[in-house]
Amino acid sequence: MLINLTNMISIIMGSFSDFDIIKKAIDTLTDFDIEYDVQILSAHRTPDETAKYVKEATEKGTKVFIAAAGMSAHLPGIVAANTIVPVIGIPINASLQGLDALLSIVQMPSGIPVATVGINAAQNAALLAIEILATSDDVLKKKLIDYKNKLKEKISKDQKELEKKLSK
Amino acid sequence: MLINLTNMISIIMGSFSDFDIIKKAIDTLTDFDIEYDVQILSAHRTPDETAKYVKEATEKGTKVFIAAAGMSAHLPGIVAANTIVPVIGIPINASLQGLDALLSIVQMPSGIPVATVGINAAQNAALLAIEILATSDDVLKKKLIDYKNKLKEKISKDQKELEKKLSK
Amino acid sequence: MLINLTNMISIIMGSFSDFDIIKKAIDTLTDFDIEYDVQILSAHRTPDETAKYVKEATEKGTKVFIAAAGMSAHLPGIVAANTIVPVIGIPINASLQGLDALLSIVQMPSGIPVATVGINAAQNAALLAIEILATSDDVLKKKLIDYKNKLKEKISKDQKELEKKLSK
Amino acid sequence: MLINLTNMISIIMGSFSDFDIIKKAIDTLTDFDIEYDVQILSAHRTPDETAKYVKEATEKGTKVFIAAAGMSAHLPGIVAANTIVPVIGIPINASLQGLDALLSIVQMPSGIPVATVGINAAQNAALLAIEILATSDDVLKKKLIDYKNKLKEKISKDQKELEKKLSK
Amino acid sequence: MLINLTNMISIIMGSFSDFDIIKKAIDTLTDFDIEYDVQILSAHRTPDETAKYVKEATEKGTKVFIAAAGMSAHLPGIVAANTIVPVIGIPINASLQGLDALLSIVQMPSGIPVATVGINAAQNAALLAIEILATSDDVLKKKLIDYKNKLKEKISKDQKELEKKLSK
Amino acid sequence: MLINLTNMISIIMGSFSDFDIIKKAIDTLTDFDIEYDVQILSAHRTPDETAKYVKEATEKGTKVFIAAAGMSAHLPGIVAANTIVPVIGIPINASLQGLDALLSIVQMPSGIPVATVGINAAQNAALLAIEILATSDDVLKKKLIDYKNKLKEKISKDQKELEKKLSK
Amino acid sequence: MLINLTNMISIIMGSFSDFDIIKKAIDTLTDFDIEYDVQILSAHRTPDETAKYVKEATEKGTKVFIAAAGMSAHLPGIVAANTIVPVIGIPINASLQGLDALLSIVQMPSGIPVATVGINAAQNAALLAIEILATSDDVLKKKLIDYKNKLKEKISKDQKELEKKLSK
Amino acid sequence: MLINLTNMISIIMGSFSDFDIIKKAIDTLTDFDIEYDVQILSAHRTPDETAKYVKEATEKGTKVFIAAAGMSAHLPGIVAANTIVPVIGIPINASLQGLDALLSIVQMPSGIPVATVGINAAQNAALLAIEILATSDDVLKKKLIDYKNKLKEKISKDQKELEKKLSK
Repeated sequence: MLINLTNMISIIMGSFSDFDIIKKAIDTLTDFDIEYDVQILSAHRTPDETAKYVKEATEKGTKVFIAAAGMSAHLPGIVAANTIVPVIGIPINASLQGLDALLSIVQMPSGIPVATVGINAAQNAALLAIEILATSDDVLKKKLIDYKNKLKEKISKDQKELEKKLSK
Repeated sequence: MLINLTNMISIIMGSFSDFDIIKKAIDTLTDFDIEYDVQILSAHRTPDETAKYVKEATEKGTKVFIAAAGMSAHLPGIVAANTIVPVIGIPINASLQGLDALLSIVQMPSGIPVATVGINAAQNAALLAIEILATSDDVLKKKLIDYKNKLKEKISKDQKELEKKLSK
Repeated sequence: MLINLTNMISIIMGSFSDFDIIKKAIDTLTDFDIEYDVQILSAHRTPDETAKYVKEATEKGTKVFIAAAGMSAHLPGIVAANTIVPVIGIPINASLQGLDALLSIVQMPSGIPVATVGINAAQNAALLAIEILATSDDVLKKKLIDYKNKLKEKISKDQKELEKKLSK
Repeated sequence: MLINLTNMISIIMGSFSDFDIIKKAIDTLTDFDIEYDVQILSAHRTPDETAKYVKEATEKGTKVFIAAAGMSAHLPGIVAANTIVPVIGIPINASLQGLDALLSIVQMPSGIPVATVGINAAQNAALLAIEILATSDDVLKKKLIDYKNKLKEKISKDQKELEKKLSK
Repeated sequence: MLINLTNMISIIMGSFSDFDIIKKAIDTLTDFDIEYDVQILSAHRTPDETAKYVKEATEKGTKVFIAAAGMSAHLPGIVAANTIVPVIGIPINASLQGLDALLSIVQMPSGIPVATVGINAAQNAALLAIEILATSDDVLKKKLIDYKNKLKEKISKDQKELEKKLSK
Repeated sequence: MLINLTNMISIIMGSFSDFDIIKKAIDTLTDFDIEYDVQILSAHRTPDETAKYVKEATEKGTKVFIAAAGMSAHLPGIVAANTIVPVIGIPINASLQGLDALLSIVQMPSGIPVATVGINAAQNAALLAIEILATSDDVLKKKLIDYKNKLKEKISKDQKELEKKLSK
Repeated sequence: MLINLTNMISIIMGSFSDFDIIKKAIDTLTDFDIEYDVQILSAHRTPDETAKYVKEATEKGTKVFIAAAGMSAHLPGIVAANTIVPVIGIPINASLQGLDALLSIVQMPSGIPVATVGINAAQNAALLAIEILATSDDVLKKKLIDYKNKLKEKISKDQKELEKKLSK
Repeated sequence: MLINLTNMISIIMGSFSDFDIIKKAIDTLTDFDIEYDVQILSAHRTPDETAKYVKEATEKGTKVFIAAAGMSAHLPGIVAANTIVPVIGIPINASLQGLDALLSIVQMPSGIPVATVGINAAQNAALLAIEILATSDDVLKKKLIDYKNKLKEKISKDQKELEKKLSK
């Protein structure tokens, strides 16, 4: 969790209550041996600290930000406003099944994109961050290919289990 | 439009394209002889300038902020993050009939409220700002009572016109 | 709960079943040492009593109304129809995740604004009411600054707890 | 348009701008030779006048109210709050495709029903009112049967026209 | 539950699983000493039986139909297609929070209205039916006035309980 | 348009106003040299005629029904209630962007399926009907393969046109 | 579960977690003595295997595909892209109450229809598949008539149980 | 538009009719002097060609895919299924205001992320692609900083124009 790496990812969550969902992003990054920084920062409660952190992290070489928030969910957009590094937004389902957070994160104005993933999709946010790092890192690229192959093998295993279940 | 008044209202719009809607707020404030400041400031394109402006305006005595934005519509929330003065949010219909902006503005986290009015409801935003000023200004209070009476008279006039129309 | 104060806030709920949510507004006002009146009044079951109460409370000096209702949620609009004092509306999630109440409260016609907060956001309703009172009350203004600072400190504490959790 | 009839229907619209839609209800009542009263009254701009009118009309023998409103659309509910006579609500599409008005009108609390018809469905509101009157009026009942037969004949005619069109 | 009355109401539900909700309509009718018929009939599983029942009930003097259905919820519309008697539709929340049933019931084509009440609002359906009967029944009219007064008294009692709770 | 064929498709539309959309289904069937019957029949205005037609057409060997309707859109479900032949439902966008019709058609209760295609997707309804007929007709199967190949060729042509456009 | 039959149906699910819902389709097919193949295949995790399977199954004589998926729910569309055989899509409620899956499945582009059934409606998917097979199989047709009759008898039994319940 | 570059971006649109929207992405890439490939490929009409193209482009060094589609909008997900390179999805508003396409693109299953931008937000898709390339390209990084500065200057200019307009 130190800001001193080349391939670094920074994860920001708007509230500690989002941790259980964010945990899946952390676990995925860990599986890929990628270092990350995790911060609780709020676009509304700590606006100055958020802006300061994002600017500093950008300067120190953060390559991708992952920002998660629910409801009004301004955090990813505010992170994007303070950096030119790709920002991945995770809409958290805290009300209205997450539709409010999804629209709030994805409908950014021209000039300031946020790469939005599905509602609560922290694992996909981490994978997208890894894909971005992998555009200039062949080791990661190979790991992603392995990861995709494992997804396929899982489906094959599930098919066998299903056939066993149905043949009873 | 100078920041030097006691009963001042500050109107911030995220984009010049919102001006036609905001115009109705300006006209209403003018009808009530209330001075206002108007700024184009973007939560995403000019985050630092927005924070700076809101803090300064707050210190100089701005009593109410009116902030309008469409789509992701983070502006009102970001204004609220930088002041303890009431912030009125106007969701602009720029996509999805304004539902994205409405949810983005109204669903603020605990601690940082935004007083949200209806989609494109700039006139109501101005009236709400005037009501807030009127909580400590008896002249304004009287003007609001007059205003409400005119709304009633308008209904009476409409009724007469309707009866004329139907009696033909 | 008596109508005899200068800085008074009046809280109206449409049904006793909304009390658990409204409680958060009451607690917040209590934290700020602000007196309030609490009423159960229904726009549909007690229309005359509601109109009468709102008019009387306005005359006696109520400075802000907070009205909470679910479903059709006409209460905040009906309060606004009977006063020129700012009215804060809280949409209660009683069906359709509160979307019906939100639209019913926020989409007011021109001339009669309701300052709408998020779904079930009673604490924010109280804070908005306090912000409105604080436009002419420097003691409250200072309390609001303290409150916002505490929100920030809470984030710092959460960050430390998070780091402890992750370093295990 | 005088309040002096036994089988009377009272039509209330929240705004003159709704007249073009309401016209279809008026035309349908006229086709059935039913007298009606038409009023422009607003739940928010003229709350006292609305309550007064509804109570008086009820006493004078109004048998059904038809109330049309858009956006927050509190009018039908407020009419229902002031009478024990059936109230038919017409959601007007003034924003959000009329979904706000529909939810605002139909989701009434227990004890105060509003008989809601489709968005902009003024003709159906009139027919529903006639069906209600017809529960104690055999002449009207016969007219409704004739009306339904005409609907069927129209379909037969359309079918012939369609066949002509396709056989070309 | 026999079809042999003058002021009769017929309740039709699309599925036995809706009974718990419909029970509130039955209880309300019982409170008003109104006789009713209850049928399980499906627009899709028993289309002929539904049409036959509705036509016969109409001929035998049924004055109001109440039809409840979830999901596609065609039942109220199909009842309305087979009678000229007022039909009250209750959207049941069986999926999508009842929004599918609401839209399916309320958005009827011109010529065939359904008086739609809120989602799961069986009690209001019964009250609306009673209001319709009361348009030609002064005893029922008086009962409705009493009912509305009890609703008011309930609010007063709730207010007292609330004050007791808060004064602790 | 005579009911005397083996591989027949019957198209039913709720209203003549839907013809322009239905025309695309007719054109597609004509392209595949498939005979069809076209009827205007309403689930609500001509319920008996609709039931009678569907039963007779089923007996005479209709293999697939295509039913189109907007708003409450009960027609496809009612057709399905009266046959054991596959019924394809086309939601027509007549209000709420067709979402009401889509939900009304697709959310059928267990036991009575309707094969729903996209909003206004009359061409796809025809293709689905052809696919169903092709399950026992090898000539049609071949035609469908040709049709799909043409779709591919169209994409290739579009690509060439695009490249021409961009190379300018 | 072998691909070697004339009247075969192939069921594909995107994830093993959908099995409990798909089970109802399997049970219905079993009740009708119809052989089926069941596969877990993902449009996203195993795109090549999915395409290969669908093409092979089509060649071996699969007459109908049933594909179930939640969220983005691309599976039914991808199956349809690789066959000219009818494809039935089941939207699974895995988020947003299944509305995302419904729209993703039903709103197919011109040329590639998917026969969509209701959210989680696996039983109806099976029945629709049987109806399609029955267009060229008189034994199945008779079974479907029997099935529909049983649905009617169930309603009669429910009615008796209801009457017993109410007469207590 | 040749596949022979290191920093390459590939733009895929599902239909030629999306070109006017995609043009904004092309213009933005051109402004940044970034080479790109543009393809019309359909997940449903040309599934094999799409898979083949994506795999080949990935092997030849494509660093980011941008895929745009409306309605069912499976294209971005299918591109993601065939590559480990970041995929940016643009939901096109072709129906339901683009909500169907948004949900279809963003709600991807675990393992296969799509970086979704706002409805019709082709310019932001291009900027996000550039941000991704810039994670390993300092020249691009500088260009992005310049671009953001121009966004700020535009706001300043707008403010001056606004003041001129208001001072008249």
